[in-house]
Parts: sequence; structure tokens; C-alpha cells
Amino acid sequence: MINVHVYITLKEGVLDPQGQAVQRSLAALGYEEVDTVNVGKWLKLEIVDGPDVETRVEQMCEQLLANPVIENYTYTLEREEKV
Amino acid sequence: MINVHVYITLKEGVLDPQGQAVQRSLAALGYEEVDTVNVGKWLKLEIVDGPDVETRVEQMCEQLLANPVIENYTYTLEREEKV
Repeated sequence: MINVHVYITLKEGVLDPQGQAVQRSLAALGYEEVDTVNVGKWLKLEIVDGPDVETRVEQMCEQLLANPVIENYTYTLEREEKV
Repeated sequence: MINVHVYITLKEGVLDPQGQAVQRSLAALGYEEVDTVNVGKWLKLEIVDGPDVETRVEQMCEQLLANPVIENYTYTLEREEKV
């Protein structure tokens, strides 16, 4: 099994109303030191090991997980050691 | 400024319908090697440096960012070097 962590964020310049709402709510609670907030997604996939895992993860991101028009994604792979 | 990355996930045992939906959609697209999917949130906060930053970040997580009943959170702090 491979653990894949996918991090998805809005591209630079894309309005992030959810982040703005969180920032305003934090300010209303007294956390005025918080200047900006960006909200993204974080997915953890457990994948059966096979050929071309990285290529296939990139395809999954492009096709379903992220919206490449407005979002960036990065991912990390973590192979579980066989015991 | 301090960059804080907050990672929020559902606790072990809490049903993750969003993750299940993503897993089924990936399988329908032919990515049958994906066994389980967990969906979490990832927040990036830019915070003005001050005392007790870590304590305050934990309070923000408990009060607003995460739901401590069903969610776990972790965070990392990253201080920007003054030039």
C-alpha cells in the first residue's frame, strides 16, 4: 500500500471567500493578529502499489480531485515498508 | 509574520461520506487501485508574530477551525526570516 497525501489550494489571485469568512470570524473572536487565511483541501489516498503510481495520481488530480483551472495541487507518496 | 499550516481530519471511526464518494468516483473512472480516501481541510494562516502564538493557534482550532468532537488537528509554524 502507498499512502498519498494530496494538497489542493486555490491559485494565486483566485478569490477565497471561505478563507475571508474564517479570517473575519477569527477577528470577531479576538484573534486580530490573523492577517490572511487560505482554505484548501487535503486528501489521503491509500493505493495498492503498482506501476506508474505517480502518473496515475497526477491524472486523478487533473480529472477529479482538483479543478486545474483555479486550483493547484501537490502530493507526496509514502510507501509502507513490508514487514 | 508567521505562516501556520493547520491540517484537520476526521477522527478515526467517524464516517467520511465525502471520502467514500471520492473513492467511488475514482473507481468509476478506472482508478480501482485506490482503496480508501479521507478528505480533510488544510488552512494556511498568516499571523502577526506575538507572544503565545502556539497557544493562540490551539485556541483558534478548538474554538472555530476544527470541531474537536469529531475532528483532529495538527499544525506547523514557520517563521519568516527577517531580511
